[in-house]
Amino acid sequence: MGQTISEKIFSEHAGRPVKAGEIVRVDIDMVIGNDITTPISIRAFEESGAKELANPDGFAIVMDHYIPAKDIASANQAKISRDFALKHNLKYFFDEKDMGIEHALLPEKGLVVPGDVIIGADSHTCTHGALGAFSTGMGSTDISFAIITGGNWFKVPETIKVELVGKPGPHIYGKDIILEVIRILGVDGALYKALEFTGDTLKYLSMDDRFSICNMAIEAGAKNGIIAVDDITLEYLEERKKVNGGLRAEPKIHTSDPDAEYCQSITIDVEKLSPVIAYPFLPSNGKPVEQAVADRIKIDQVMIGSCTNGRLEDLRIAAEIVRGKRVARHTRMIVTPATQRIFMQAEKEGLIDTLIEAGAVVSNPTCGACLGGYMGILGDGEKCVSTTNRNFVGRMGARTSEIYLANSAVAAASAIEGYITDPRA
Amino acid sequence: MGQTISEKIFSEHAGRPVKAGEIVRVDIDMVIGNDITTPISIRAFEESGAKELANPDGFAIVMDHYIPAKDIASANQAKISRDFALKHNLKYFFDEKDMGIEHALLPEKGLVVPGDVIIGADSHTCTHGALGAFSTGMGSTDISFAIITGGNWFKVPETIKVELVGKPGPHIYGKDIILEVIRILGVDGALYKALEFTGDTLKYLSMDDRFSICNMAIEAGAKNGIIAVDDITLEYLEERKKVNGGLRAEPKIHTSDPDAEYCQSITIDVEKLSPVIAYPFLPSNGKPVEQAVADRIKIDQVMIGSCTNGRLEDLRIAAEIVRGKRVARHTRMIVTPATQRIFMQAEKEGLIDTLIEAGAVVSNPTCGACLGGYMGILGDGEKCVSTTNRNFVGRMGARTSEIYLANSAVAAASAIEGYITDPRA
Repeated sequence: MGQTISEKIFSEHAGRPVKAGEIVRVDIDMVIGNDITTPISIRAFEESGAKELANPDGFAIVMDHYIPAKDIASANQAKISRDFALKHNLKYFFDEKDMGIEHALLPEKGLVVPGDVIIGADSHTCTHGALGAFSTGMGSTDISFAIITGGNWFKVPETIKVELVGKPGPHIYGKDIILEVIRILGVDGALYKALEFTGDTLKYLSMDDRFSICNMAIEAGAKNGIIAVDDITLEYLEERKKVNGGLRAEPKIHTSDPDAEYCQSITIDVEKLSPVIAYPFLPSNGKPVEQAVADRIKIDQVMIGSCTNGRLEDLRIAAEIVRGKRVARHTRMIVTPATQRIFMQAEKEGLIDTLIEAGAVVSNPTCGACLGGYMGILGDGEKCVSTTNRNFVGRMGARTSEIYLANSAVAAASAIEGYITDPRA
Repeated sequence: MGQTISEKIFSEHAGRPVKAGEIVRVDIDMVIGNDITTPISIRAFEESGAKELANPDGFAIVMDHYIPAKDIASANQAKISRDFALKHNLKYFFDEKDMGIEHALLPEKGLVVPGDVIIGADSHTCTHGALGAFSTGMGSTDISFAIITGGNWFKVPETIKVELVGKPGPHIYGKDIILEVIRILGVDGALYKALEFTGDTLKYLSMDDRFSICNMAIEAGAKNGIIAVDDITLEYLEERKKVNGGLRAEPKIHTSDPDAEYCQSITIDVEKLSPVIAYPFLPSNGKPVEQAVADRIKIDQVMIGSCTNGRLEDLRIAAEIVRGKRVARHTRMIVTPATQRIFMQAEKEGLIDTLIEAGAVVSNPTCGACLGGYMGILGDGEKCVSTTNRNFVGRMGARTSEIYLANSAVAAASAIEGYITDPRA
């Protein structure tokens, strides 16, 4: 019997063939913490009596949630990570300098390569699977264990195969595909399982689309999302190599064997998809945009950003739609580029000016609005179209606010109209 | 006996000659509210039973403090102003669309002209005196009275004459001049008085410098700061006229008579000034930068922005200093352009990229950090060099944090060194 990619990555790390269901202890290639989870890891690290990190160059701290500090508590919390990073002379500490959202920043910096085992104290760590790595979120104390010992224990996950078929139509993106997957599987349909995305649709999907897909694997409960390396991945890695003067490590490319064992398979006919809107209050609550248009949903705020959809293509799509137009009078639009590099490239292409001229606010990179941190919190009863990943009750602010998850084209078109809008119309 | 500019503006508005000490009721040309003060004005407006504003085009609401909403309370608070602006169809409502800090935005938009009487529910409303207007902060209920009736009552202020002599040396700006004035007068030295700035130094001071000077008149307790119109003012107005397709009204130019009565006169020899650093915890606590350098003050954060020093020249000065360098490892640098137009011009000049490449975060326009709102709040014991206007206990965050007020060159140089630094060195 053959192996899935996830099994192969664990086999390679364990030094012996392993199968789904086995418990293995493996070394971890990159551990990720952020400003709100790292202080807990640091406390556990210090309580353990450890003096040194097993692999200081394998621990990246990215200050992205409440930075620049939104209040005194955030400032004090940030200081814990800053002091730790200075004390241990961490190579990969990203603060106000070179800011970015961790799951956009690490791939951009060439710090994630195919074949890696990555963990992060953030549920959307599954994003990095888009590069053919095994990447998953863990709790802050699991992170401590990893930075102290260099590794951690995993149950090798079973895999659900998601076969994507056909060419996406206009304004159908990775976001629509993953929202459709979550709609089918439900928010707990993939608990502790790998979601492996395959199929001929992949050749139409950019890396930005793929990050967006793997990013939301967790919203179906998955342990990880993963996409095998292909020419699009290699081209992306080549570019990262060039920009950063190298990658963190040599990529190890794995593909699932033709006779690999899957616990479930689903097929999405991407050609037939409409843009998907996930209604409140679950990401699995997807409906075609046509229904949302018919429902005439008036929008107070549009948010384009986050580790899901704050990448360059999102900004290009949004700018293209709002160019020369103006955000509706009763609506506000917030655009948060996911990293400084994305911001600067968007500047160069004139996208930032286009967005501002249309009436958007463009913020510094931050997770802010997405998790109800800062930079666009919703008030009582407000409705928001958001390119982020979660529309739970109160996720972006008031308990009576409502979030409609969508792709960046829907979000931008809705900002102009002030109602949920089909960008293809 | 002749009149001061402030007396002339009130005389013109009262329709009869008035003198300092008189109580007059005059019509107001522009009333300003922001997202944190306007809701109080709106409540009083509604409790009064008023249905209409006396002059809807004379009331500008600028959402600049906690917007995009930093939390649920800010979002709910903002909604009050938004609903009011929509209901009364206010022409000058500046929200996420076309964001800016009120005291930078209004002049930029051509909404302030010489000879105006302006009030705002914000203490730094005195900024607009740089355009030869009478402009002062008032409480939110005084604002209600003005929007209901079109006018308000004033005691015509006595005037302190501040004679500025000599050419400023390198890296001496308006900020240093006003910090020196406040050092001399003390924080209550000009209570309910006008501070009128005159002298040959003015010909070296740009409008950005002048706004910075008048902005901090309140920090000496002054009712208003004022500078007579000259060629530099006229050139600025011409530019505003061109950009905005006109000014809000025709300028009325007043100058103090040679025999005008002043209650006090002080002279500043600007040529001899060093950059001034206002130590914690009062703006009057100014010391020459040489002393601050000798005191070897280690800096956690540098903040360049606010209605005092978030203008284009500040960004130019800062970018010039940090170009090709990198913010100190233990220091973070936050730059907040005061308006979107300033941001976009700075982009065009490459300043934004230069700042980001040096390790600064460039934020959306906001008052945020300056008043301890968001976007750079200080934690326990942290020290900040800030181009803002107040260094009171806890102003920017924790009660044990310390703020050193300075010009933008000192701030930028300090960011690079990580210690308070003389930019001339």
